[in-house]
Amino acid sequence: MARNLAHKLIAPHLVEGDMTPGEPIGLSIDQTLTQDATGTLVMQELEALGLDRARTERSVQYVDHNLLQADQLNAEDHEYLRTACQRYGIWFSKPGNGVSHPTHMQRFGIPGKTMVGSDSHTCAAGSLGMLAIGVGGLEVALAIAGQPLRIRMPEIWGVRLDGELPDWVSAKDVILEMLRRHGVSGGVNRIIEYHGPGLAGLSAMDRHVIANMGAELGATTTVFPAEDAVREFLRAEGREADFEEWQADPGAEYDVEDRVDLSALEPLIAKPSAPDNVVPVREVAGEPIGQAVIGSSANPGLRDFAVAAAIVRGRQTDHSVSFDVNPTSREILSDLTKMGATFDLVAAGARIHQAGCMGCIGMGQAPASGTNSLRTFPRNFPGRSGTPEDSVWLCSPETAAASALAGVITDPREMGRTPPKLDLPAEASINTAMLVAPEEPARARQVEPVKGPNISALPELDPLPERVEAPVLLKAGDDVSTDEISPAGARALPYRSNIPKLAEFSFTRLDEEYPARAREPHVVIGGSNYGQGSSREHAAIAPRYLGLRVVVAKSFARIHWQNLANFGIVPLTFADPADYDSIERDDVLVLEDLPEALRSGNEIEIRNETRGLRFRARHALSREQVEAILAGGVIPRLAGTR
Amino acid sequence: MARNLAHKLIAPHLVEGDMTPGEPIGLSIDQTLTQDATGTLVMQELEALGLDRARTERSVQYVDHNLLQADQLNAEDHEYLRTACQRYGIWFSKPGNGVSHPTHMQRFGIPGKTMVGSDSHTCAAGSLGMLAIGVGGLEVALAIAGQPLRIRMPEIWGVRLDGELPDWVSAKDVILEMLRRHGVSGGVNRIIEYHGPGLAGLSAMDRHVIANMGAELGATTTVFPAEDAVREFLRAEGREADFEEWQADPGAEYDVEDRVDLSALEPLIAKPSAPDNVVPVREVAGEPIGQAVIGSSANPGLRDFAVAAAIVRGRQTDHSVSFDVNPTSREILSDLTKMGATFDLVAAGARIHQAGCMGCIGMGQAPASGTNSLRTFPRNFPGRSGTPEDSVWLCSPETAAASALAGVITDPREMGRTPPKLDLPAEASINTAMLVAPEEPARARQVEPVKGPNISALPELDPLPERVEAPVLLKAGDDVSTDEISPAGARALPYRSNIPKLAEFSFTRLDEEYPARAREPHVVIGGSNYGQGSSREHAAIAPRYLGLRVVVAKSFARIHWQNLANFGIVPLTFADPADYDSIERDDVLVLEDLPEALRSGNEIEIRNETRGLRFRARHALSREQVEAILAGGVIPRLAGTR
Repeated sequence: MARNLAHKLIAPHLVEGDMTPGEPIGLSIDQTLTQDATGTLVMQELEALGLDRARTERSVQYVDHNLLQADQLNAEDHEYLRTACQRYGIWFSKPGNGVSHPTHMQRFGIPGKTMVGSDSHTCAAGSLGMLAIGVGGLEVALAIAGQPLRIRMPEIWGVRLDGELPDWVSAKDVILEMLRRHGVSGGVNRIIEYHGPGLAGLSAMDRHVIANMGAELGATTTVFPAEDAVREFLRAEGREADFEEWQADPGAEYDVEDRVDLSALEPLIAKPSAPDNVVPVREVAGEPIGQAVIGSSANPGLRDFAVAAAIVRGRQTDHSVSFDVNPTSREILSDLTKMGATFDLVAAGARIHQAGCMGCIGMGQAPASGTNSLRTFPRNFPGRSGTPEDSVWLCSPETAAASALAGVITDPREMGRTPPKLDLPAEASINTAMLVAPEEPARARQVEPVKGPNISALPELDPLPERVEAPVLLKAGDDVSTDEISPAGARALPYRSNIPKLAEFSFTRLDEEYPARAREPHVVIGGSNYGQGSSREHAAIAPRYLGLRVVVAKSFARIHWQNLANFGIVPLTFADPADYDSIERDDVLVLEDLPEALRSGNEIEIRNETRGLRFRARHALSREQVEAILAGGVIPRLAGTR
Repeated sequence: MARNLAHKLIAPHLVEGDMTPGEPIGLSIDQTLTQDATGTLVMQELEALGLDRARTERSVQYVDHNLLQADQLNAEDHEYLRTACQRYGIWFSKPGNGVSHPTHMQRFGIPGKTMVGSDSHTCAAGSLGMLAIGVGGLEVALAIAGQPLRIRMPEIWGVRLDGELPDWVSAKDVILEMLRRHGVSGGVNRIIEYHGPGLAGLSAMDRHVIANMGAELGATTTVFPAEDAVREFLRAEGREADFEEWQADPGAEYDVEDRVDLSALEPLIAKPSAPDNVVPVREVAGEPIGQAVIGSSANPGLRDFAVAAAIVRGRQTDHSVSFDVNPTSREILSDLTKMGATFDLVAAGARIHQAGCMGCIGMGQAPASGTNSLRTFPRNFPGRSGTPEDSVWLCSPETAAASALAGVITDPREMGRTPPKLDLPAEASINTAMLVAPEEPARARQVEPVKGPNISALPELDPLPERVEAPVLLKAGDDVSTDEISPAGARALPYRSNIPKLAEFSFTRLDEEYPARAREPHVVIGGSNYGQGSSREHAAIAPRYLGLRVVVAKSFARIHWQNLANFGIVPLTFADPADYDSIERDDVLVLEDLPEALRSGNEIEIRNETRGLRFRARHALSREQVEAILAGGVIPRLAGTR
């Protein structure tokens, strides 16, 4: 049978189960990626697991999220990460080296390898023909410890690309088209596999743009073949030796199929405040803007900055616009500088920021309330920019740059200019000096990770009670993101390594009083696609610390569902979604005999004590997950079975 | 009589009084400078004064302090400033254009002109032969409204420079030597005038370094002659037409004299946590560091960044060091980029930050607690970095760069290298597009400044009661800075335009409970040099908002003393400093018949009710200042006399 690429990537890593969609499988993991906002917990988990040394082929810790350093907390996290990496045999990428996804692609990505990362955009490495999956930090910690990743086998969604992108249209418009068609849960339980003749016109970094925002479709991951474009990319990065060809067999079959004619695309933009709120730019042209931002892992390539520089070259951004440029890595900033593009950007009015995630994670350059901000970022969830009443749009660098010049949203085709021809260097400005290699094992064992005063240990997690009688403290709507459960941003992020403190921010976007009202135990009710967005396991641990024991939702986003189970919170879905409407905040729910109920089947009865109603809910937990939840979470479970 | 330069600059601007040291004078003001952290209040004051249009030759509003934008507040301030500038006929320098002092020098500074600025480092413009004085925002507002600046005539302190700086020693070491000799109050009530043959080796930007940190000596300002070096600077900036020669007469006399032999200097460093805690670098060499920062208005010139780039070129900063580079303007970033220095810095591991004040004002790149941070900044007051338990050292770019490579404090002479020869461009990368010119008057009158929800009006200020019977809520030590009275930093600074909110941070560095304990009326007791540092009038308005009516100190820093008087707080000095020791916190003090007491002389009796003691205090207020304080402050006074 003609195999698709996803199956070819999975097969040599399959250590449990078979590739039947929906069935549990285990995958051996070659590489891991962590970033600072989630990595501090991963290090605490490695400590709790008693790990001596990483067992992966390569594990890399990046520092890209918390770079502002408004006080000592972030710098102390960086020092903790640096020394914990020395202790556990992990590569450390210094603050300023770059955003994890493009940097990993440049320095460490290898076609055919598997990777898990404690960042939802880990899937970007699919651009190189890797099978790269964003997961919670604990899964990464377990992978570093040599354990397989356990998921349910996804469907493979073949997306055939035909034709060639028109002038002024780029990779970002491809993924925005996918979001326009399929929405933020269109990819749930699927691996997206791009194939077809249209690939020929997409560089590896273009593919990164498309693979990265597969996370916004809710997909398990995205894969692209490793062929000429990948070989060329690795050659420019001085790593041609790491190239290996990985392609689908001719005539490969897919569980689901779709097709995009690249030549029919036009500039697209996601309106506030959801990545799938996509319309053609021309429909919203003329809308005034106060900010345009170029950067983030969703448009990370040299090409993305160079095209913006070429568009603004010799011109001036509008007086009412803040034009913020955030190079994704020092390699890209170096290349831009060599090319003269840095000069062009600065001359046109750009504010050049240190290489990192910046406003994409709400760490800086927040816009004024209600002011339209155009960003080349992957997400525009409400408030994620740092401004509670924000108005963030997602678009290509071409659209952002054209709009920055005009001061209003502008379709770049309407500028009346010749599309820029980019002359990109054949070789990247490779410089590995900010990547600190692991210590030798004997020296590593002598390293004591430096824990600043703000770095806590993981909280103790007690077993699930046999019977839960608990109030509903919060009833959430559809598509609630982990940004709303445990916010990013400059106020909360510095406490990512201090759960008791971070817990005070839980759910405050939805209900400011939640942390004060929280008590042991309680329940949260969710709508559909509950927990979309970032992979942060803080969205499970922090409410759990405040007493959350059960979430009943219409449906869950994959990573958050896994995080809930990892930290001993029971994730249930309504058997009949209509029952959602019968529950109100403060209703008291009763779940009887939980060990028996969870072990014996996948349905469970819940009694609404306040209203005298009963309804049924389901779980999709594996036997191992049930045992972990009963023990209080994976870590107490492992401690108990050691 | 042979006149010194300071007198020659003052004479044509003298509209009241004569040049007898200590006597009140009035000076006409040609230019004003405001920055965003103080400028929002200035705009509110212009509104309270009912100004139609700026009456100065040139007034410029810069945005350089609050650039991080962790939430919407800073962006809303920027928009308020931009539109208020349109309303009042003021130039607006967009965020990202650069730090006020070097940018003003590059674009607007003119030898022979007077300037006031609501920033204590306004004195840096003395490098061009201007008489530039840092004052509170209200003085700037009054100057914009066409009123003279009223101060007491300072002594003129002639400092003769001889010889030439040795290799590896630069302008920063000159001003550190002055601080080593004279301390943070050595320049109080003085204008420092540099003269002599040593000037020939100092460029205009070198002089900026020295003039800038005259603020740290407590000086009223610093002046340098306008001769060849200034002409050359203005030529490189395309403004030779603005050059005019200003020099002291040969054999000019000074009230005080000093002499520095430049050839005898060596690399110096100010240890934590005061700018005058100066020792030779060699005495502290080997101390480990976690951070080195190049930037700020204290080392703002192309040369300062280029020398750091030359030192690190082709090498790598130590793994344990965060090497932060903060270009002071986009012009300098452009020049550095053209020269290749940006590339060299990035390649050596630099984190390049947007042009602005950044960590100098506690807005970013705060170090870990207790970690040594070397900075080319002007100030290292405790906590000013954003880290409460910080350990900040002040040094030259040469020392900072050498130490960044080594990971320990390093005397650059000990690197065993040839001193870099810098090849600086003869013409600067001039680009004025981020400077928004004033609107035409007719159009200006139609502009309504945009006030975001966080922008308050000035609080109402009630008249001084005839009798104050009030507790001492705080007893402070010597050299308390305005950073300790009203902190900078990322938490407080965004509230600079919202006094009720900002007031909650008052004195919290000294006593966390002060805002909660504050009540109307109360007294604060200070040591000597009370209120040194930044010019922020928030340090007067915010405690006044909480009920502060009287401060009794051993001595005051000039600008803060003026700010207290401006906002209706009585600033008194102990007639006998020993009485300081007789007062404790919570003692109740009584001041009787204040209108009579303040008007009739310069001494006043204070009764310590709690201890049954009496002591005498003095004031140095002018008749006009007394009336303003009795009215509640200058603004109610002006409103009452209109």
